[in-house]
Amino acid sequence: MKSHIGNILNDLEKDNVQAYLLTQFTNVEYISNYKPTSFAFCIIKENPIIYASGMDMELARKDSTIEVKEYESYAAMIDELKKEGIKSLAIEPSLPFSTYSKFRDDFEISSKTYIDKQRMIKTPLEIEKIEKATEIAQKSFLELDILNNRNTEKEIAFDLVRFMIGNGADKESFDTIVTSGADSSLPHAIPQAKRLEEPILIDWGALFEGYCSDNTRTMVYSEHQQEIWDIVAEAHDKAIKAIKPGLKCCEIDKVARDIISDYGYGDRFIHSTGHSLGLDIHETPGFSLRDDTIIEKGMVITVEPGIYLEGEFGVRLEDTVSISKRANVIGNLPLNID
Amino acid sequence: MKSHIGNILNDLEKDNVQAYLLTQFTNVEYISNYKPTSFAFCIIKENPIIYASGMDMELARKDSTIEVKEYESYAAMIDELKKEGIKSLAIEPSLPFSTYSKFRDDFEISSKTYIDKQRMIKTPLEIEKIEKATEIAQKSFLELDILNNRNTEKEIAFDLVRFMIGNGADKESFDTIVTSGADSSLPHAIPQAKRLEEPILIDWGALFEGYCSDNTRTMVYSEHQQEIWDIVAEAHDKAIKAIKPGLKCCEIDKVARDIISDYGYGDRFIHSTGHSLGLDIHETPGFSLRDDTIIEKGMVITVEPGIYLEGEFGVRLEDTVSISKRANVIGNLPLNID
Repeated sequence: MKSHIGNILNDLEKDNVQAYLLTQFTNVEYISNYKPTSFAFCIIKENPIIYASGMDMELARKDSTIEVKEYESYAAMIDELKKEGIKSLAIEPSLPFSTYSKFRDDFEISSKTYIDKQRMIKTPLEIEKIEKATEIAQKSFLELDILNNRNTEKEIAFDLVRFMIGNGADKESFDTIVTSGADSSLPHAIPQAKRLEEPILIDWGALFEGYCSDNTRTMVYSEHQQEIWDIVAEAHDKAIKAIKPGLKCCEIDKVARDIISDYGYGDRFIHSTGHSLGLDIHETPGFSLRDDTIIEKGMVITVEPGIYLEGEFGVRLEDTVSISKRANVIGNLPLNID
Repeated sequence: MKSHIGNILNDLEKDNVQAYLLTQFTNVEYISNYKPTSFAFCIIKENPIIYASGMDMELARKDSTIEVKEYESYAAMIDELKKEGIKSLAIEPSLPFSTYSKFRDDFEISSKTYIDKQRMIKTPLEIEKIEKATEIAQKSFLELDILNNRNTEKEIAFDLVRFMIGNGADKESFDTIVTSGADSSLPHAIPQAKRLEEPILIDWGALFEGYCSDNTRTMVYSEHQQEIWDIVAEAHDKAIKAIKPGLKCCEIDKVARDIISDYGYGDRFIHSTGHSLGLDIHETPGFSLRDDTIIEKGMVITVEPGIYLEGEFGVRLEDTVSISKRANVIGNLPLNID
């Protein structure tokens, strides 16, 4: 984390900005190991500091690797910054307008993605945690009794979370999706209290020591479903094979999208090919139409093409890859679940 | 929801603003019944419209009570607004800076709390849903076998969520807190894989048809713990009795804080006395030091004083009240759990 701060201080110096304000909980966690439960202002500067809420002080003092003070008021915080001679302040793009407006009269504000850029490249320890989260999630998936059709989508989703926690997860890394039949054409379907229909689409992940995993499998049962599944699997496999450092993220999206389009389903692939993950389930960069970020070693990104036929069904297949010379699929769960 | 939009249109007219942009998922849900799963821009104006992401179009068309278009780009959306002659745009205070910055060159921007103010006053149907969420949560709590000390905090938390889902909840309304022993001095403790110690503090809620419940109970076992519990219970009861329309929110905080201070624990009551809830678990107004919002009929607010003794233990007692002539406690779970 010291090197994280060091890198950001270098970025600040290059841009001639004196301090960087972070409030997003996972950003504060990334920098300091303390994850706020209420609110916090983390200010990276020569002497980094966190202003934490009173109710978080015990936790913050225990977990934080950088200095923590109790937040009193915007006025007091701004005063201290001004006393240090700080005139220019960088902010996260995600900072709420209301917070921005507290600072804009006293500082020269610029929105900077230093922290997002830093978080794009995972350390070996971060990758290990994502691998462990994936291992827990995939092992738990295999413990499911999917085809016992007395079960409802909601029950299967619940069992999966139960197994993940039993296998060592902190919790699910996002709301588990278990959807089936026509509902599977909703990419973010909510599990219903209805017995499983066909096909069955499960999109799930574990959180382990703060880090997320993300996978999707679709189990198909008819010829038409299998046909769509095969197209999605081809897009999935070829996109992963195409990944290498130096290419742009959008080029990987194009590989998957072109395959699906060639089969005539281009307009039914209604989302991006993938997103980074880490402390958050959605991070940058993503394999999407307009993301021209250069792929680098250390990135961890999902590959999840899908085809959604409204009123019929949907198929999505998702793995998470870590990038070194090429893309390494994390985990070893086959695409094809029997 | 038509009346919700109507009220906001009136606010806009009064302030001479032409349109109001909402992006927070629960705000969009409140206005349109469609809860985004990806991103959405809901614009309240003469003819309200939602720009939804492609992957949400099926869901949005199904759920939304107002017109939905597929989002293409900021440029296209801004163009359409300008064609309608819109020059002034109100935004939510929570709008991310990056989104604000897309609009600020083309519109006169003002941050407005119309939607928060509207959401402060719950309709009878909203209160019914909060009551039902509370009923589910409290019934589930009573199904717990708390004192079976083979159980860990994590297991109890998991059981509670399982019971809530079994009793009809969509899910938990926030991360369930089951904490015990010295850890209970952390207001937002995370359940650990350790057997229950004493005292035991449980802070939990159910989500029912989108609406949250929120309660806390603390089970104490020593004289010192009981002494602290009694003070917190007195603050809880007297704060609730003090609530009535016309008073300021901060006056209720003062009632609870003064009682705890009189016993010498003022500096160990490290958070506000309460917060509103509804579609979100934390809404405005709150019973806090600086919130001078006037209490009105239809508000639903928690009352949750606490005393936190670092290294020893913490006690918090929380109920949710709906306000009519006085405060009505929602649910009927006793404070004192035997």
